[in-house]
Amino acid sequence: MYREYVEGIARKAKEVFYEVASRSTSQKNDALRAIATVLREKKDAVLAANRIDLENFDKTGKSGALRDRLLLNEARIEAMAKGVEEIASLSDPVGSGNYISKRPNGLRIERVRVPIGVIAMIYEARPNVTVDAAALCLKSGNVAILRGGREALHSNLALMEVIREGLRQSSYPLEAVQYVEKVEHEVVDEMLQLSDLIDLVIPRGGESLIRSVTEKSKIPVIKHDKGVCHVYVDASADRGKAEAIVINAKCQRPSVCNAAETLLLHKDYPYWKELIQTLLDHNVKVIADEYIRREFPSLQAATEEDWYTEYLDYIISARIVGSLEEAIRHINTYGSHHSDAIVSESYGSIQRFLSDVDSAAVYANASTRFTDGAEFGLGAEIGISTQKLHARGPMGLESLTTEKWIVYGDGHVR
Amino acid sequence: MYREYVEGIARKAKEVFYEVASRSTSQKNDALRAIATVLREKKDAVLAANRIDLENFDKTGKSGALRDRLLLNEARIEAMAKGVEEIASLSDPVGSGNYISKRPNGLRIERVRVPIGVIAMIYEARPNVTVDAAALCLKSGNVAILRGGREALHSNLALMEVIREGLRQSSYPLEAVQYVEKVEHEVVDEMLQLSDLIDLVIPRGGESLIRSVTEKSKIPVIKHDKGVCHVYVDASADRGKAEAIVINAKCQRPSVCNAAETLLLHKDYPYWKELIQTLLDHNVKVIADEYIRREFPSLQAATEEDWYTEYLDYIISARIVGSLEEAIRHINTYGSHHSDAIVSESYGSIQRFLSDVDSAAVYANASTRFTDGAEFGLGAEIGISTQKLHARGPMGLESLTTEKWIVYGDGHVR
Repeated sequence: MYREYVEGIARKAKEVFYEVASRSTSQKNDALRAIATVLREKKDAVLAANRIDLENFDKTGKSGALRDRLLLNEARIEAMAKGVEEIASLSDPVGSGNYISKRPNGLRIERVRVPIGVIAMIYEARPNVTVDAAALCLKSGNVAILRGGREALHSNLALMEVIREGLRQSSYPLEAVQYVEKVEHEVVDEMLQLSDLIDLVIPRGGESLIRSVTEKSKIPVIKHDKGVCHVYVDASADRGKAEAIVINAKCQRPSVCNAAETLLLHKDYPYWKELIQTLLDHNVKVIADEYIRREFPSLQAATEEDWYTEYLDYIISARIVGSLEEAIRHINTYGSHHSDAIVSESYGSIQRFLSDVDSAAVYANASTRFTDGAEFGLGAEIGISTQKLHARGPMGLESLTTEKWIVYGDGHVR
Repeated sequence: MYREYVEGIARKAKEVFYEVASRSTSQKNDALRAIATVLREKKDAVLAANRIDLENFDKTGKSGALRDRLLLNEARIEAMAKGVEEIASLSDPVGSGNYISKRPNGLRIERVRVPIGVIAMIYEARPNVTVDAAALCLKSGNVAILRGGREALHSNLALMEVIREGLRQSSYPLEAVQYVEKVEHEVVDEMLQLSDLIDLVIPRGGESLIRSVTEKSKIPVIKHDKGVCHVYVDASADRGKAEAIVINAKCQRPSVCNAAETLLLHKDYPYWKELIQTLLDHNVKVIADEYIRREFPSLQAATEEDWYTEYLDYIISARIVGSLEEAIRHINTYGSHHSDAIVSESYGSIQRFLSDVDSAAVYANASTRFTDGAEFGLGAEIGISTQKLHARGPMGLESLTTEKWIVYGDGHVR
């Protein structure tokens, strides 16, 4: 019964794909602008639906960070509408290419970007992702199947009304964006079997959601996994830069994946004690190795498990390393290959770090917090990939396309 | 016990990855040239090992095509050595990039190609794949774990001796290329669980191998699946081109994935009967729809299953279609999204076909047989991907790399 329900959705999605994929950039942008306009017009209905979700949420007594993600207000709705308009203003990757070759036999070969197909997006209770994901899929010529966290169901259904009205006004098939309304998790399990109908699954959320989707899916998955990000302060680091970067990477927004979780200090960095003290002054809990605890005996001792941990809070693990090499080995062993920074004034140390740290983004003298599609110049992002295949790091519109080889002949045979 | 064995191999592979990845292009090319030289020097040992495999094979009484793939001789060994030298001469994708941006805040951002990591290649009894895959992985800075079909074990072990001697001469860690010698399939099943140690699995072979790997693997897989390739002959097709292309696509080498399996004929193409007759004259078995059978009553009637079938033989399914749209729909429904061709003199029909057929390679007036890394100008290929993520169509060296974002700051914080 769940299978039938979700297969119906996927089948409709697949059916409209070729129609959606063939829309011109202007048609796609018109649809996006229509969605932004309808969103502003219908904001009261969206806010009313969001209030129901919030009331239900408040009955559960859960934490404030989740509530904040769920909450919509006028300013956030305006930001969502502006976000959709910004996606309309981005250049369209579909039809672009960078490989053209005339072969010795006269065949002309091009490789061009084309939409991927049906993309299923599975996320938590963040209504803004509903609109973002729909807009990014539409712009890249893909068909979207959305499945948000159940706590945001009323908000998401109201936003789907907005999206559908925008599609209607711009003569798009309404199945270009569909929402999986049934909240049972069996629906998702069944969806992940439909490898003939769905081309890509993007899970976005906590570790357990990602692990569950990755293990069950027969459809290719692009993971948006945790970020165990490091800042390594080299012996030659500038004191002011080190302090600014460590505090920013840990404290500016600790709940996000590009916040720092581990601080590695070169044993010869002269101000390491001052840096630990500055973290403590910023109300950061420091979980430290034995070397640091000799100077700060009141700190909690780090266990092996701590080096793997994404705290997402005002907590950092800290360790003294004997060399740059030891820092690099630590990061490649315990990190999640997301974003890692070195603070150093040594050309050699920086080059070595940037080359040998095996992460999606590596930084010299800058905070890990910059790993983000907009900050990197890609425009909006559908997430940050922590895997190596297809897309790595911030995923912009281009990551939502694939390639196609086009061959022009004149009766050519082998 | 299988787990322990294969985990040992994978762990050694992972350990040497950073060392292998940091080799310069010259060092990599030196290793490749050393392997080619050793291969020529030790050809007698390789041929002797191959004779054992062939003798064992002959006891099974299996078919000639498999034996031909297994067979090595002096010419084939020379071709393998030349292939390795050719890979040495290809430009190195590692370290190249096409995105450099200076952000408004002064951050400099680059995106460069880097090796993927540990790549496991699972293939059938084709000894040449052992050398090809090792050379492509070495050149792209990856570490290879190879697992060929058991019928080729002696040949592959002799080739591994060659590869190891080449690595030794060029001061490479011998674990840069390892071979899974245990022939039990449980070894592969266990290997496919090692997602912490292996970054990518590439299965290359028949449908059942691909399906089994795809379903069991917890590691990302790039499929090299079957090719149900079509030639569509439009109403306006040139008779000579149509005949040459159809015969070439079907008959030049029927056992490969880019050979044609289905012929679609526009009902208004005046020479369709002659084309069917030409196929029959080339000893091709034509499995036909009712319309064609009215003219050729002795032909076998096509079933629904036939349209999905990869014959890999002198057999073709054939069908009359009422329109270009019907042909496109047929291809997108029954095809394997590999390689499909239109023969037509109509600009409009060709543009429509190339745009709307959702395949890795689409052809205007050329044989589907050209889908190949060398023919497309990529140099050697590790295979032809039939999936949409990461790599689509012929996979050259670039497809064996991923990207990394490098950010240069000067104390930048958000």
